[in-house]
Amino acid sequence: MRHLIDFGDVSREEWEVLYQRASDIMDAPERFLDACRGKVMASLFYEPSTRTNFSFQTAMLRVGGTVFGFADPKSSSVSKGETLKDTITMVSGYADVVVMRNPREGAAKAASLYSAVPVINAGDGGHMHPTQTTADLTTITRLRGKVDGLSVGLCGDLKNGRTVHSLIKAMAKFQGIKFFLIAPRELAVPEYMRAFMRENNMWFTEVTGLESVIPQLDVLYMTRIQRERFVDPLEYERNKGVYVLTRRKLARAKQDLLVMHPLPRVDEISIDVDDDPRAVYFEQARYGMFARMALLTDLANQPRRKPEPVEIGRGPVCSNPNCVTQTELYLPPLTKQNGGVECCAFCDAPLR
Amino acid sequence: MRHLIDFGDVSREEWEVLYQRASDIMDAPERFLDACRGKVMASLFYEPSTRTNFSFQTAMLRVGGTVFGFADPKSSSVSKGETLKDTITMVSGYADVVVMRNPREGAAKAASLYSAVPVINAGDGGHMHPTQTTADLTTITRLRGKVDGLSVGLCGDLKNGRTVHSLIKAMAKFQGIKFFLIAPRELAVPEYMRAFMRENNMWFTEVTGLESVIPQLDVLYMTRIQRERFVDPLEYERNKGVYVLTRRKLARAKQDLLVMHPLPRVDEISIDVDDDPRAVYFEQARYGMFARMALLTDLANQPRRKPEPVEIGRGPVCSNPNCVTQTELYLPPLTKQNGGVECCAFCDAPLR
Amino acid sequence: MRHLIDFGDVSREEWEVLYQRASDIMDAPERFLDACRGKVMASLFYEPSTRTNFSFQTAMLRVGGTVFGFADPKSSSVSKGETLKDTITMVSGYADVVVMRNPREGAAKAASLYSAVPVINAGDGGHMHPTQTTADLTTITRLRGKVDGLSVGLCGDLKNGRTVHSLIKAMAKFQGIKFFLIAPRELAVPEYMRAFMRENNMWFTEVTGLESVIPQLDVLYMTRIQRERFVDPLEYERNKGVYVLTRRKLARAKQDLLVMHPLPRVDEISIDVDDDPRAVYFEQARYGMFARMALLTDLANQPRRKPEPVEIGRGPVCSNPNCVTQTELYLPPLTKQNGGVECCAFCDAPLR
Repeated sequence: MRHLIDFGDVSREEWEVLYQRASDIMDAPERFLDACRGKVMASLFYEPSTRTNFSFQTAMLRVGGTVFGFADPKSSSVSKGETLKDTITMVSGYADVVVMRNPREGAAKAASLYSAVPVINAGDGGHMHPTQTTADLTTITRLRGKVDGLSVGLCGDLKNGRTVHSLIKAMAKFQGIKFFLIAPRELAVPEYMRAFMRENNMWFTEVTGLESVIPQLDVLYMTRIQRERFVDPLEYERNKGVYVLTRRKLARAKQDLLVMHPLPRVDEISIDVDDDPRAVYFEQARYGMFARMALLTDLANQPRRKPEPVEIGRGPVCSNPNCVTQTELYLPPLTKQNGGVECCAFCDAPLR
Repeated sequence: MRHLIDFGDVSREEWEVLYQRASDIMDAPERFLDACRGKVMASLFYEPSTRTNFSFQTAMLRVGGTVFGFADPKSSSVSKGETLKDTITMVSGYADVVVMRNPREGAAKAASLYSAVPVINAGDGGHMHPTQTTADLTTITRLRGKVDGLSVGLCGDLKNGRTVHSLIKAMAKFQGIKFFLIAPRELAVPEYMRAFMRENNMWFTEVTGLESVIPQLDVLYMTRIQRERFVDPLEYERNKGVYVLTRRKLARAKQDLLVMHPLPRVDEISIDVDDDPRAVYFEQARYGMFARMALLTDLANQPRRKPEPVEIGRGPVCSNPNCVTQTELYLPPLTKQNGGVECCAFCDAPLR
Repeated sequence: MRHLIDFGDVSREEWEVLYQRASDIMDAPERFLDACRGKVMASLFYEPSTRTNFSFQTAMLRVGGTVFGFADPKSSSVSKGETLKDTITMVSGYADVVVMRNPREGAAKAASLYSAVPVINAGDGGHMHPTQTTADLTTITRLRGKVDGLSVGLCGDLKNGRTVHSLIKAMAKFQGIKFFLIAPRELAVPEYMRAFMRENNMWFTEVTGLESVIPQLDVLYMTRIQRERFVDPLEYERNKGVYVLTRRKLARAKQDLLVMHPLPRVDEISIDVDDDPRAVYFEQARYGMFARMALLTDLANQPRRKPEPVEIGRGPVCSNPNCVTQTELYLPPLTKQNGGVECCAFCDAPLR
């Protein structure tokens, strides 16, 4: 692995190696205190994301590395009057690894073309957030010993949730997963995700209530439902209570259920659930830090490598208005095949 | 000591141990370069306070630890849409010690309930700022060899000054202190502080002029008088010169007087005093850093400990509008006895 | 060297020592991983300058030191209600070296008067930016083996460019430099710079076109031309293309030419030049980091020294409205001789 842009690019074998290292770190963190000694991480947050930022920073510090960067583009002059290419070229001259959060889809892929050091995608708009997925898988593997064969409930807004889609895609690397997709009809999983699950022979069922399926679950992954996502506000009011996890609903769940949440939680998990041993959402954040330690230990120690020259583009070939190619006009016209469809190699949107 | 929320919770013995460590650090800082190796401090400043923030950061760095956090909530998304409980639970999963500044009274106490690691109060509204007190006592002890038996002048706004009240309370742990309380009548020390000094058999006198008492002082603690504190602006104009320390007023003081100030100074100490060897207010800031090094060396090395579950509250029992319980509604209804009066255990305000 | 305020204060011998250390660091960076162990750099950016800030931070981290400070005065309370003297006195109590960027001319010199530790000028308004010059000279020396005897083209806005003026002055320490000053008439080098070059027996010629002289150059230093600098916008439109470096113009240049730029580049260098091996502007940023590592290795390891008392001024003697003495009224009335003219010792403006 040179960069981590999309968890889909990580093979099962690469994942096993990464998890094993995370597991070693959790068992004996003191052995890794100098793993990134002398290495410097650039942390470029073109939009604030305090949790992700803190997790990466503490991960790097705990393996003996150091950190610089910005948490908010408003307090930086980097984003003004300079291309992403120039910023990344400069920053990758100072750093050993670059962590980037950017509101534009495909920005991390674009950065990786010009960087002399590995780039880690810490979220590129609504597109990918691969280290959230590594946090999720690390939590499940650490606490259940495996991912294969689990019954996983995904609850909340399954239409818009990037986290949930990434997790589904990542689970395709494992065997015997059963998905219980728990969402109001308006916020059901999109058709292309259903197609993805069918193509990958993944078992799934869609339901509109949490209570009936909760006894069958090994993992319950909660996500937030935002009022703004509903066309009809009354529909939101009718629905919201159904998707709130309470101590009472938890009574009928398995004793070794894992209740997970990408955080921040608003009110979709009642506060009285927090003290239940099955509530692992805060441990999940901590496991995310260990997973990032494992990742950085690998990537920050790779040798610098002058990037290969790339073609200079003449404007976007992709029509996704949030794609990075819409603003960084020099990007090369790269495409890729996703399931037989020609797509933008940056944001994965299908090309006309 | 697990947390440092209120200097009143620190016994004389604990203070002696802390000071001894600070003193050891000042004598041989190179011996402490790895005292917090591998440890990470979270620095959560919900309101900016650059001096306190810098002092804590450099303290942690000088004992070999590392730092992450935010200096200003505007550049963080943490304060939005998340309870203090959730933020602290998450952050204490990443950190070994949490330093928090928060505009709400009792916020540090609240944080300590949910933190898996020690919490240090770096100021909670107008309530407490215990490490300012440790800075003050470290300065006096280092430069005079002791605190017992000193004549201490407190000058300026003694009505509103949190720093001054904390120092008076802390001095109750020592013997034979004489206080000279130097303030305009409008800004005299509040009655409850007088009661505190009487209960603790502390000698004090109140005067409205600095010049007459300055020859008797071992320590002169200056604070700022803000125009806004006066009901009558003319009263401010009449008064302000009286409480300004000048080179001329200093002429009649003892040769080993310590002139102290919590900084920033505005014009209550004339700039020509700075070069006088008795002016130790900048050394005081540096001693504050050493005191914080001693504190962090202890607290950042304590083992993680899952916090005990606490009762979920149903809204505030305290009517102080600045109390943290007014905004964090799930906090438990904790109370305590202060001198026989039932008070809020977070902000110390008397209940009804 | 105690402080680095103005590259003009650095002797040729001091420069050679500094460059040699930078060169040693580039050859074997792992030998310097602990060169600043236990040392702390204060990074005070009173105006944002992300590139300079990143370069200093990563430099300090790569020699084993640590960093605190602010990147933007808006997120700091330091700049409010406190003199520069008080801020620097406090900060130099926490730090081992202070790096300061400040919009006021002479601010770094002012800070150095009150600091117990070395001060490095990271830019003081339009006045000086000495570490940009060290970056430039390090790049040339590293890539060409020497500075003496080179033919150097300076292209763009030579009237307002602080970088270019500093480089010309620095080059006076070397032998046999030939300057090709390439600028529109409106933005030609100022008369006092011409006088400086004549006094120092430096060869120079002024031209208005880049293409005709490019074959003669060993170094081509590009700078940005801002539309706002032109009295007549049409003049800008007529001119701009002439001073844009393209792949085509580069065809006639020497094979070992160095194309340099202080960054950020806007459109004065065409993007298709980036892959040409002669384009070294991004390497230049990286060499700047190594030069700063060398500088910090020296200055951060110097012993603390209580600053000598200085006279308290009674208002500015200098009439430059951007001079630091206009706002910091206590500064002493220091003057110096520049080429026989009495000047302000802070901002170098001639008096009266």
